[in-house]
Amino acid sequence: MTAARPTALPVVQFHSRAGCVDLGWGHPHPAALPVDAWAEATHSALRRYGAAALTYGYAAGPGPLIEWLCERLAEVDAGPPEPAQVFVTGGASHALDLVAALLCRPGDVVLVDSPTYHLALRIVADHRVEMVPAPADEDGLDPTATAELIRAIIRRGRRVAMLYLVPTFNNPTGRSLPNERRSALLAVAARSGVPVVEDDTYRELAYPAPAPASLFSGAEPGTVVRIGSFAKSVAPGLRLGWLTAAPSLVAAVTARGYVDSGGGVNHTAALALAEFAASGAYRRHVEAIRVRYRRQRDALVAAVRAELPQAEFVVPDGGWFLWLRLPHPYGGTELLPHAEAAGVSYVPGRQFFVADAGHSYLRLSYSMCDPETLVEGVRRLAGAYRAAGLSERSTPLPG
Amino acid sequence: MTAARPTALPVVQFHSRAGCVDLGWGHPHPAALPVDAWAEATHSALRRYGAAALTYGYAAGPGPLIEWLCERLAEVDAGPPEPAQVFVTGGASHALDLVAALLCRPGDVVLVDSPTYHLALRIVADHRVEMVPAPADEDGLDPTATAELIRAIIRRGRRVAMLYLVPTFNNPTGRSLPNERRSALLAVAARSGVPVVEDDTYRELAYPAPAPASLFSGAEPGTVVRIGSFAKSVAPGLRLGWLTAAPSLVAAVTARGYVDSGGGVNHTAALALAEFAASGAYRRHVEAIRVRYRRQRDALVAAVRAELPQAEFVVPDGGWFLWLRLPHPYGGTELLPHAEAAGVSYVPGRQFFVADAGHSYLRLSYSMCDPETLVEGVRRLAGAYRAAGLSERSTPLPG
Repeated sequence: MTAARPTALPVVQFHSRAGCVDLGWGHPHPAALPVDAWAEATHSALRRYGAAALTYGYAAGPGPLIEWLCERLAEVDAGPPEPAQVFVTGGASHALDLVAALLCRPGDVVLVDSPTYHLALRIVADHRVEMVPAPADEDGLDPTATAELIRAIIRRGRRVAMLYLVPTFNNPTGRSLPNERRSALLAVAARSGVPVVEDDTYRELAYPAPAPASLFSGAEPGTVVRIGSFAKSVAPGLRLGWLTAAPSLVAAVTARGYVDSGGGVNHTAALALAEFAASGAYRRHVEAIRVRYRRQRDALVAAVRAELPQAEFVVPDGGWFLWLRLPHPYGGTELLPHAEAAGVSYVPGRQFFVADAGHSYLRLSYSMCDPETLVEGVRRLAGAYRAAGLSERSTPLPG
Repeated sequence: MTAARPTALPVVQFHSRAGCVDLGWGHPHPAALPVDAWAEATHSALRRYGAAALTYGYAAGPGPLIEWLCERLAEVDAGPPEPAQVFVTGGASHALDLVAALLCRPGDVVLVDSPTYHLALRIVADHRVEMVPAPADEDGLDPTATAELIRAIIRRGRRVAMLYLVPTFNNPTGRSLPNERRSALLAVAARSGVPVVEDDTYRELAYPAPAPASLFSGAEPGTVVRIGSFAKSVAPGLRLGWLTAAPSLVAAVTARGYVDSGGGVNHTAALALAEFAASGAYRRHVEAIRVRYRRQRDALVAAVRAELPQAEFVVPDGGWFLWLRLPHPYGGTELLPHAEAAGVSYVPGRQFFVADAGHSYLRLSYSMCDPETLVEGVRRLAGAYRAAGLSERSTPLPG
């Protein structure tokens, strides 16, 4: 690296706090970002395609990336999409925004898993809908109760625009929806006509691979929109992701005015990613980061077991997060100021629920820190826990 | 270039038609795209920032690009914005979509210049508003009549969400709004409270420079949102643009769920552009393409004067387009099939109007073709004109 240019303005999103082990951020480990390989991929795309790499691209995404993606999904999912079922997006968040813009009308109801990705809640809320938590328990979304809820909402004269969930290595829980619930949920989607939006961001981060088959791969045509991303598998700064859906939905996204006008949403980067993939760099990189993140997960799990045995959790088979439940019903919420004072931070569980819920939980990210830092963070967290006097169960919550 | 990877799917948006000189596309000339310099800029950004170039970026855009952009606008506009007035977008089209999402509610009225960028009409229409043409004449938008129209719409109980125009080197006309109309329009915006969305995409393509001062640079705070782009000045495939607006609007765009979740909309490319700029490549490149596009404009203008003297036009001082008016009131519309049969194409003027208007006009792009190809295209167009029997004025239009 040469010197960063002097700037009074931030360059990146992460805001480092002196003395704080911050387990709040779902960001990649800096050493897990393919700096040299990305320079080579960009160079390779410009060499191969010349001006075609820099002009207006094919609106659904350039052919070489779409075709490779179909091949990759044949390897890491139960079945590949057809090219006409694929659209290249500016990341998973952008995909969710695009899909919500198509499916939602102001005043609609959108069902969301509980808990679910907290920033997805903000993306959906931008579309002026009412978010309603789908019924869920420790194993994830409950399809039978969700079907009943959909019927009740429709009886009240409301329209249910879509159902959003992260069924594989859920953010924040790290858990995957069991197979029998997947089948039942697909049946609910087919019967009710409510489209399921499946956020499949963490598919490549399976320890060990493979991840469970996607909802999309088992769905009746037109019932599931699946969102994927290269933010976790390659690099978030690229702003590259994709979605797989019915050709009619792909066509509708492609026909959005700004997508058509712009020639796709990230053409040059998409061609560089196609080169990154074709060269074998993608496969090598994903294998390497699986090893890295698995080691970081194991370090965090061991530290929590040793230092904070009061916390209950299920070891995740993939993703970036550990979801802890404290005995105290407000443990996750009340521990935070004590943790921050002790030099460690996290995201309180409350933020992953639409309803006022989740106060006993906290989400720890193991993505960004080395094992020794994770261990030090948990040591501080355990100290804060003891200092906070949260170890005695308080009275049950009202209601 | 190495060989393109075999693919059954398109790579780029442009669809070449055998035997056709296509003057319809507003795309850059392939030789005007900085293939080698962009590889170097990407490499330089990765070398300078390392993992920070690939992780989640600062949501408004990385500091180095925002600071350089402020410096550049001090050179090519009447005054620079403050950094807090700048947001980095995924191109001008994306900027318009973001701004419309913030400013428009379904059922609102949006005023648009007549004629104006045809794909902007589609971007705005995606927000389920009613588009109404602002009164305009040969010199562009008429501020006094527009103020009256705004009052009339409001009296009818409707909300006017925004007014969209391309005041500098307008697409399709190539003309710039005269200074006295700029001042008057700014006064209308301040009095009426209707935000003006100024599409400033063509500012850098002035022959000769400088372009007129932007509306934004002379506006009262909070009355104008100005949209800019690197699609014309560098390369459209990058999907990089920007907007300048009141800090409150920049903050609202930055807080959109998917912008915050994604860490900005194109972080890695934005840092590469900052390197492209800092190295001097941007300045050299813009100077070179000004020479190129000016030469192409001059070739097209001379050819039309020589071959198709029936066409009226004003020589544009910038941009990529020549806007022809034929004597026949349906000339632009009716000539097209004859032109296509003769091996030349264009965009009929009708497409740049919300109302059923503009049938006598056609837009020729001089951006994508060498001078000799432009000359050949006009020769074919003139032959088609003679064959179509459009040279006699028909009866005036009804109504």
